[in-house]
Amino acid sequence: MTLETAELVVKDQFPGLAGDWHYLDTAATAQKPLAVIEATVRAMGEDYATVHRGVYARSADMTLAFEAARRRAAAFMNAREDEIVLTRGATESINLVAQTWGAANLKAGDRILLSMLEHHSNIVPWQMLAEKNGVAIDVCPLTEDGRIDLAAAERILTPAHKLVAFAHVSNVLGSVLHVEHAAKLAHAVGAKLLIDGCQAAPRLALDMAAFDCDFYAFSAHKLYGPTGVGVLWARKDILDGMPPWQGGGAMIDRVTFEKTTFAPAPQRFEAGTPNIIEALGMAKAMDWLSAIGLDRAERHERDLAVLLRTELRKRNDVTLFGPDDSLGIVSFALDGVHPHDLGTILDEEGVAIRAGHHCAQPLMEHLGVPATARASFGLYSDEADIEALLKGIERTRRIFA
Amino acid sequence: MTLETAELVVKDQFPGLAGDWHYLDTAATAQKPLAVIEATVRAMGEDYATVHRGVYARSADMTLAFEAARRRAAAFMNAREDEIVLTRGATESINLVAQTWGAANLKAGDRILLSMLEHHSNIVPWQMLAEKNGVAIDVCPLTEDGRIDLAAAERILTPAHKLVAFAHVSNVLGSVLHVEHAAKLAHAVGAKLLIDGCQAAPRLALDMAAFDCDFYAFSAHKLYGPTGVGVLWARKDILDGMPPWQGGGAMIDRVTFEKTTFAPAPQRFEAGTPNIIEALGMAKAMDWLSAIGLDRAERHERDLAVLLRTELRKRNDVTLFGPDDSLGIVSFALDGVHPHDLGTILDEEGVAIRAGHHCAQPLMEHLGVPATARASFGLYSDEADIEALLKGIERTRRIFA
Repeated sequence: MTLETAELVVKDQFPGLAGDWHYLDTAATAQKPLAVIEATVRAMGEDYATVHRGVYARSADMTLAFEAARRRAAAFMNAREDEIVLTRGATESINLVAQTWGAANLKAGDRILLSMLEHHSNIVPWQMLAEKNGVAIDVCPLTEDGRIDLAAAERILTPAHKLVAFAHVSNVLGSVLHVEHAAKLAHAVGAKLLIDGCQAAPRLALDMAAFDCDFYAFSAHKLYGPTGVGVLWARKDILDGMPPWQGGGAMIDRVTFEKTTFAPAPQRFEAGTPNIIEALGMAKAMDWLSAIGLDRAERHERDLAVLLRTELRKRNDVTLFGPDDSLGIVSFALDGVHPHDLGTILDEEGVAIRAGHHCAQPLMEHLGVPATARASFGLYSDEADIEALLKGIERTRRIFA
Repeated sequence: MTLETAELVVKDQFPGLAGDWHYLDTAATAQKPLAVIEATVRAMGEDYATVHRGVYARSADMTLAFEAARRRAAAFMNAREDEIVLTRGATESINLVAQTWGAANLKAGDRILLSMLEHHSNIVPWQMLAEKNGVAIDVCPLTEDGRIDLAAAERILTPAHKLVAFAHVSNVLGSVLHVEHAAKLAHAVGAKLLIDGCQAAPRLALDMAAFDCDFYAFSAHKLYGPTGVGVLWARKDILDGMPPWQGGGAMIDRVTFEKTTFAPAPQRFEAGTPNIIEALGMAKAMDWLSAIGLDRAERHERDLAVLLRTELRKRNDVTLFGPDDSLGIVSFALDGVHPHDLGTILDEEGVAIRAGHHCAQPLMEHLGVPATARASFGLYSDEADIEALLKGIERTRRIFA
């Protein structure tokens, strides 16, 4: 097995990975390369100023840098820059769509199709909208190996469906959605397609033109960037028709107490002083990731998942969840050991995994477990991390024998 | 004049103030001390992990640090920690109140009282709510010298008023509201009082117990902290009764497709991975500011405003706006020179002021000007900044003579 990125991404670029520590929780949040930290320090220091308002040079420069970050995000996902709303993260992106486009367009009798593997952030906003507007929610089942079952989706979808909201990559199973196929199915009944791209954005090349979805959301902090910033992409014609959500500075055209008019999208959705520092950090993370190449990232994440699944399959006391071609994320159970106990013992060995419901309680119920153990990879992950995990599992086995 | 803080706050703690630059736009956003930048670097690097979810030590430590940041904010404003919602900034804080408490409690026929000097972020969210729920908005006039006229407020208020929303310190005039007095007036008719504390938080000791208001909002980036984070404080009994706003991870109790239940406040209002890095930076900024002392900050900001007003009054071609005891913020006009032209010439002299409507278009209309020039101070500001501004005004005068 060739892990070519091992030569490209050296761990000492990541202050968060110092010491003999094996970080296998990148699906929760990614560690930050020095390039992103240094960009943040510059943005907070010698370059710091507000945007969109100052008449002095530093503020004009910062405005250019902030808008360049928007362009960077557009290029990162092959989209137009006026289709990019900078949010605080994917959760806000999805809530924004639910509370503006959803509230304006979904009425009693309409239906939404979600899937059984969605993260809470792609369930709860729709439940809140459904309760408010009298909309019904359908749940697309999964295939035996843990993919969203698009054949089932095709059978479920009717012209009453106005929205399909699916994860691009499952945060528990690592299974990958064929977005173009899902878009065809949604559009065939006149529904829009929203994609939760949190786990895809760090692992797959994004191409809004090719995907043909209508909304796409992700967070920067899973993409080697800062917390507190993310992206909502929406097709220009849809975004232009969406009513404002949060009121405040920068999103208005003119304010009087009699009548306030709003700025065009995307500014209409960015009320108040934006997350300036974070947006610049996100742009740098996209530079960094794109320089390595998303094709390499995808191969690296697949290779590591295959390696771990192959090793775990050699044990007769491990249950694996998800498909064999899962992307960078492997959920499993060790017979007779609660995932939290496994996580705790692994922690003593310097191995950090996630144990829990992964904000996907309906999926846990479907799998018939209260929780799973999950190992997830990043570009800095390598075979030594997997070896340490396997060694820790073996030690846990001996303790629980 | 004693500017005692000049000995406490040395400019070389601020990488953003390097060189021969006179930054007089702190009311837009404050420069960051090294302590805050270093805390950010640590949070993004050696300490980085997600919160609330990990079973490993680093994540548990980060969760403690994140909750300590909430406690820090509570101590900073003399409040309970379970009354502190960490938001993306003051604009989101106010929108959160409008779209949860406001949407649930304000009905057709109810009234809201704002003031003529409010920032757009404390106008537009209420206009959007008013339009949706059929609520009416009244506007409290200002005194001759630019304060919210509380005698007029008392005359306007009726039992139909359910909310009063006022700025603690005007972002244009620097005038200071007597919050306790405003709270008495609001509560006398059964209305709640929301305070926009953006310009007060860096300049005055906050004391929720003494102020007796119901909601208080501010942003960290004006408080020497990061962008992308701020605070909503609300009285415990009110916060507990507010419905959720954004759905997602961390804000739920249990999610099923049949029925989702929500976490108690404040977590109910913090959906998704929070602004972890930014919250830690904000806590450090509060440490830094509190170590200097808000009493010193207030004196410093008053002294500088008095000094600038005194100097500007010596000229016969300057109009001053706002009261003589304005706090750290001085708006003015130079006869026959558009504020933008003044700002541009000052920029050439290395002096950064703000020129524009300051996101307060109704106040501009009230003052009868399209824009003002505004100089605003921070703890790092000193007499040399004022001298540079005065020199720049004199040069502008010669150019426009």
